[in-house]
Amino acid sequence: MDPEIWFTEKYGNNVGLTFKVKEILNTQISKYQRLDIIDTYEFGKVMLLDGLVMLTQKDEFVYHEMISAPAVMSLKNRNKALIIGGGDGGTARELTKYDFDKIIEVEIDEVVVENSKKFLDFTACGYNDKRVEIIIGDGVEFVKNTNEKFDLVIIDSTDPFGAAEGLFSGEFYSNVYNILNNDGIVVAQAENPYYNPDWFLKSRRNMQKAFGLNTLNYCAFIPTYPSGMWLFSIGYKNIDLHDYFNEELYKKNANSYKYYNSQIHKACFALPQFVLKLIK
Amino acid sequence: MDPEIWFTEKYGNNVGLTFKVKEILNTQISKYQRLDIIDTYEFGKVMLLDGLVMLTQKDEFVYHEMISAPAVMSLKNRNKALIIGGGDGGTARELTKYDFDKIIEVEIDEVVVENSKKFLDFTACGYNDKRVEIIIGDGVEFVKNTNEKFDLVIIDSTDPFGAAEGLFSGEFYSNVYNILNNDGIVVAQAENPYYNPDWFLKSRRNMQKAFGLNTLNYCAFIPTYPSGMWLFSIGYKNIDLHDYFNEELYKKNANSYKYYNSQIHKACFALPQFVLKLIK
Repeated sequence: MDPEIWFTEKYGNNVGLTFKVKEILNTQISKYQRLDIIDTYEFGKVMLLDGLVMLTQKDEFVYHEMISAPAVMSLKNRNKALIIGGGDGGTARELTKYDFDKIIEVEIDEVVVENSKKFLDFTACGYNDKRVEIIIGDGVEFVKNTNEKFDLVIIDSTDPFGAAEGLFSGEFYSNVYNILNNDGIVVAQAENPYYNPDWFLKSRRNMQKAFGLNTLNYCAFIPTYPSGMWLFSIGYKNIDLHDYFNEELYKKNANSYKYYNSQIHKACFALPQFVLKLIK
Repeated sequence: MDPEIWFTEKYGNNVGLTFKVKEILNTQISKYQRLDIIDTYEFGKVMLLDGLVMLTQKDEFVYHEMISAPAVMSLKNRNKALIIGGGDGGTARELTKYDFDKIIEVEIDEVVVENSKKFLDFTACGYNDKRVEIIIGDGVEFVKNTNEKFDLVIIDSTDPFGAAEGLFSGEFYSNVYNILNNDGIVVAQAENPYYNPDWFLKSRRNMQKAFGLNTLNYCAFIPTYPSGMWLFSIGYKNIDLHDYFNEELYKKNANSYKYYNSQIHKACFALPQFVLKLIK
């Protein structure tokens, strides 16, 4: 009998999600982190960074649809989009569904991009589109120095330490504000409120420093992320986020979604009472 | 150094939630199932039935508020409520917040009630209210034979096999229909759509046999239940569920909720696209 190999991601010290591994496809130490690509029985291919689940083939659709579609449906213009992080290509894949002229992705770690292209075609297919330009570099520096303006900025980062720490800071969001067009929108993954309320609050509060009252949070069910409840922070400039829903664009793309739909578009902003209390 | 003891609930064969155990407080084999009460580092007290997490002190509030509040706020009358299962007392606790005249709980396993009273005061406190009557017996038989009529029936059951199998059947729901008043509502826990879509569909379809188009589903984030996404089925007789929200009753109880609120009341009915596809 073959040995049973189980991977466990601990959420803090006292709880974790554990799942059975079919095969370890690759392990690589980059300048920034350790990357593992594993094949699993329940979730298909899984990418780990520093031992944390970044995506699984089974449920990545939730994260990637939900970090992009709610914002896209509220955009007045779709000229340029910027992705910070997102090296697996899943967020780029989602944005290529729409008629953006240009999608720039700034990923700090080329090892993530390379491994995604090699092992995770279901997300890396986002890179096949000619409108997608990958820049290997530091997102913090990029938003500080670029002269370009964007309609949409998506912060598709790891947790707020190590390489991604700067992506949760107030200064970063103030720079994001500056590179957004007047009716622009920023979305960031914002952790979970059950095990890591402080990380969530850091994301929200620092976005709020730049976007003030135009900062909201919404949520989605992601089984392989800690607690299964994932939050996103969304900031917007001189628009009312809930004032406009691009019905035509939605109808054109409705069949492509496995999670998002027009009801979820509104409902995802309803936060449980304990989360509202956290952000008061 | 003390040994580290971890409990793992497997969701199928290839994935599970694992957490660190402080102490095993009690283990008992009843006529129906094995019960364990454990104390844990992350979740406080936990009740297991046949090795499955029934509730944890940390997140039981989500389940118990969400199996009751959305229905209660849509009720025109609050005379009699019936709970099938719910031996830990948490659902009874929630219902005692409101002005029901009578709350009957039919729990098949008295060992669950006894252990809850002994170890889980945070849920068993529901039993302190004189309006709550506990009947130790089979819920399937009770709904078949009772002459009483109810405004609300809550099916707070374990998974659809063993003692709870009958609580997922079409015949059972047809009897529930018969004991509901004209403007009555039934709610049932309905499993999760990621790992057990068949169990969810069984709950929904059999409720639908009795309640037809007046059958809906809604969802809540429960970290210690499989996938973290939990579904409920709700059926209603001669009313429009979304037509009436008891604002006054909500305001009176709003401070008591940690999860439920008036936004969640509507938003919880928005289902991800893959769930809508399942139920089509």
